[in-house]
Amino acid sequence: MSTCIFCAIMRGEAPAERVYEDDDLLAFLDSRPITRGHTLVVPKTHAAELGDLDPEAGARMFRLGHRLVLALRRSDLAADGANLMLNDGPAAFQTVAHVHLHVVPRRHGDRLRFATGLLLRRSTEPAATAAAIRAALGGPDAAS
Amino acid sequence: MSTCIFCAIMRGEAPAERVYEDDDLLAFLDSRPITRGHTLVVPKTHAAELGDLDPEAGARMFRLGHRLVLALRRSDLAADGANLMLNDGPAAFQTVAHVHLHVVPRRHGDRLRFATGLLLRRSTEPAATAAAIRAALGGPDAAS
Repeated sequence: MSTCIFCAIMRGEAPAERVYEDDDLLAFLDSRPITRGHTLVVPKTHAAELGDLDPEAGARMFRLGHRLVLALRRSDLAADGANLMLNDGPAAFQTVAHVHLHVVPRRHGDRLRFATGLLLRRSTEPAATAAAIRAALGGPDAAS
Repeated sequence: MSTCIFCAIMRGEAPAERVYEDDDLLAFLDSRPITRGHTLVVPKTHAAELGDLDPEAGARMFRLGHRLVLALRRSDLAADGANLMLNDGPAAFQTVAHVHLHVVPRRHGDRLRFATGLLLRRSTEPAATAAAIRAALGGPDAAS
């Protein structure tokens, strides 16, 4: 747990562009985004996999993912849709052993960009991107 | 709504291998599974996209997805992990305009099978597969 990168982000010991925070959850930009605005929703209590996660913490995580999809659509990023993805276990491509929900904004006609992003995963303008999402969410401290 | 294939399944007017049902949710096997045991969790109240879905219905859908991941791991399918995916909007590959959460069981070393399944999406032994998941969930009528 002390070596968990997401726990280090929560403690402020590792950098991240934060999008939302409350008592239970932190959301921040994926440092290697598939598309611009790719955000991770992370329960604050460390749980490696879904088998370790309180079901209510999972439901809270999904509620915030749902809110983020709506925010990404109305934000300056003007998403036309989004993919929500949770990879549970190394067999399912989970790479950080702390449960997290991917929120990947999509645009009409971005299939090639999406496929390229899966391979390259390069970040562009993370500070401006996080600010645009926070503005659409109603600010990082808005009640959930 | 009258032409929605998922609503037709709920009314019993279209076939599906059912895995779980309660007052709010229905879960059934994807008819074109990426891997064996690929299940869809569908809120009973029709909502085309997340923007139309009550957040509490979304949280219930995710809670059942969470339960299904744990059931798939302990079932005879012996999943080592799973991908949870929700595609919101045609821009994000949503093909049926009724919100649904994909639960895709995974096995260690199945990357090639997973990639092949994404392209071919062939069903094998759906009745036995649904029965194995129901058994691990505690039966189709078990309380959530």
